[in-house]
Amino acid sequence: MPSIQREFLMIPGPTPVPDRVLAALAKHPIGHRSPDFSDILMESIAGLKWLGDTENEPLILASSGTGGMDGAIANTVNRGDKVLSLVCGVFGERFAKIAEAYGADVTRITAEFGKPIDPQAVRDALAKDTKKEIKAVTITHNETSTGVINDLETIAGIIKEHGALSLVDAVTSFGATPVPIDAWGLDIVVTGSQKALMLPPGLGFAFVSEKAWKAVESCSNPRFYLDFRKYLKSQRERTTPFTPNVSFVVALVESIKMMKEEGKDEIFKRHVGLRETLRKGVRELGLKPCVDDAHASPSITSIYPPDSTDVPAIRKALKERFRITVADGQEELKGKIFRMGHMGYVFERDIGMALYALKEVIGQPAKAKTEAVAK
Amino acid sequence: MPSIQREFLMIPGPTPVPDRVLAALAKHPIGHRSPDFSDILMESIAGLKWLGDTENEPLILASSGTGGMDGAIANTVNRGDKVLSLVCGVFGERFAKIAEAYGADVTRITAEFGKPIDPQAVRDALAKDTKKEIKAVTITHNETSTGVINDLETIAGIIKEHGALSLVDAVTSFGATPVPIDAWGLDIVVTGSQKALMLPPGLGFAFVSEKAWKAVESCSNPRFYLDFRKYLKSQRERTTPFTPNVSFVVALVESIKMMKEEGKDEIFKRHVGLRETLRKGVRELGLKPCVDDAHASPSITSIYPPDSTDVPAIRKALKERFRITVADGQEELKGKIFRMGHMGYVFERDIGMALYALKEVIGQPAKAKTEAVAK
Repeated sequence: MPSIQREFLMIPGPTPVPDRVLAALAKHPIGHRSPDFSDILMESIAGLKWLGDTENEPLILASSGTGGMDGAIANTVNRGDKVLSLVCGVFGERFAKIAEAYGADVTRITAEFGKPIDPQAVRDALAKDTKKEIKAVTITHNETSTGVINDLETIAGIIKEHGALSLVDAVTSFGATPVPIDAWGLDIVVTGSQKALMLPPGLGFAFVSEKAWKAVESCSNPRFYLDFRKYLKSQRERTTPFTPNVSFVVALVESIKMMKEEGKDEIFKRHVGLRETLRKGVRELGLKPCVDDAHASPSITSIYPPDSTDVPAIRKALKERFRITVADGQEELKGKIFRMGHMGYVFERDIGMALYALKEVIGQPAKAKTEAVAK
Repeated sequence: MPSIQREFLMIPGPTPVPDRVLAALAKHPIGHRSPDFSDILMESIAGLKWLGDTENEPLILASSGTGGMDGAIANTVNRGDKVLSLVCGVFGERFAKIAEAYGADVTRITAEFGKPIDPQAVRDALAKDTKKEIKAVTITHNETSTGVINDLETIAGIIKEHGALSLVDAVTSFGATPVPIDAWGLDIVVTGSQKALMLPPGLGFAFVSEKAWKAVESCSNPRFYLDFRKYLKSQRERTTPFTPNVSFVVALVESIKMMKEEGKDEIFKRHVGLRETLRKGVRELGLKPCVDDAHASPSITSIYPPDSTDVPAIRKALKERFRITVADGQEELKGKIFRMGHMGYVFERDIGMALYALKEVIGQPAKAKTEAVAK
């Protein structure tokens, strides 16, 4: 039976998009070399700086967030350079793999599933590097595969003291929780449009510090489309090096307008509230979040199902009965946990709705399970 | 005085977008790992194959067309490889520059402004390469900066005979004029969403031949986001390696549906008609197209102004009085020619409108010029 209900996305991206942003996307594109578009581009850049509390220029890429992560490595890490990668899940590992793709000599610090990176381990690893050979440290602020948020402020301080570049994947944290780029001294911060920024997927962003620009200038990697220098040069001339995703930049200005209407602090407070409401509700249903309270992400919550085989049934029942989509676990966690995204255009009442649906669904997990198997 | 008229884009991209496609863009995005999105992705791939008369898999990138051109080089050309670049304008030169950015040893064959690449020059250059050291030849099918269309069929045949890879920028030809990829034996064909495909800018595409895949496999360039192998592997599994631009893929399916309704041959015939109508009309106004009839592009027409200083005045008057945007010349041609795009969602009546406006505007060039200078 097909449902006429709009799908409600509780996956960690794409996330719900406000009607005002969808309406902006539906506008006819304007010419990207026009003064009007220059104004829009500058407004979006100013908005991103406001959101990241930074003077660093955010480069706007027509790409996914991974395009930004690729750029962060491609523009700073030469073949053979030593990189320390902090890995507490799938996206931390992706950052390490990108560095390896560019020929870096990567050492990993890993955390077990559901745990954050231990800052002391980072301190120890960097202290051993007395010759200061480690060029960059990659870190995932908010690990989308588990719902852990790392103590980025502390870790960035440790990296800064050592002198390496901090390359930060803030894809599912930026806009949902504070990422004060200048105050924390973050060198490259990457994010994407389809998370807390309330847009569909289509844009990647990279904020680049003065220190990082020096590395970019001296980096010998071949690059063109993701060459950060081209974006900086063009943006300083109020334009873009290649044809931008005009519609998405227009929509970004609208979403930033909405974020300013709500207020940055209110947005961050709302996300903490969503996390608290969801975790409390989930526990009342007898379910267990995968991550301890102290390290729980304000944007994604991963949850163990009532028994270890129920994930497909829960997802299927939520989708079919309620048109609510939650995410499966990734890679070795597939089928073992489910993940609920609550970032961007999500409000307390939506968590209430999701908890109602979850209660209905796990009330009859055996039945749903049988159906899922039968299908 | 601000105008309430919708801007009519007669630039070589973005081009006019049909309301049906804008409405598709305004749909709420669905999850990109859902079976529904897999179906949509497969439908868009099938549509692109239909349009390019090919069995080669079109890779769908969240990028501009330049991302696709970068990928064509990054995935096939190693540092030190010899590349022959056919340059008859800004975009031919861009392809050469991308090859140089990846460390290729680039030789150029150039054509003077407004002229196509001479196939005989290509034959001679490749005949001299008796050791078959030239790995790839870059060629722009339709040179956007001048409005020249190259004889791709003949040139591709010459390249094929030599054995090098043909890397083809078909950004402003694909969908407007036949690019039968398999029949012409084209190795990598790159295009973008914002031209004859009737979408805004946001997607890049690359069709890769069996022969090119062999080069991709043995290419040692570091790459990740633009690594063609990742796209092929994922697309064969009905998905994407990174978060795709869901909204644009949905809109692409709609635009391909419209193209099928019109019919491929009809579309190509319409574009030839647009060119002929515009060139005839322009000549009747006493203006001169920059390119000879034999090599004139079916998607872009560049025109000399009545006297060499009138371009800013013409563009300003068209914009202010008629809300019609035409393009300036690029780089050293800035202010010396203007360019009218007529690809994608453009019909005979639109050319009639543009000719009316152009006649009104050049009837009073001196006045418009004074105003432009005064402002």
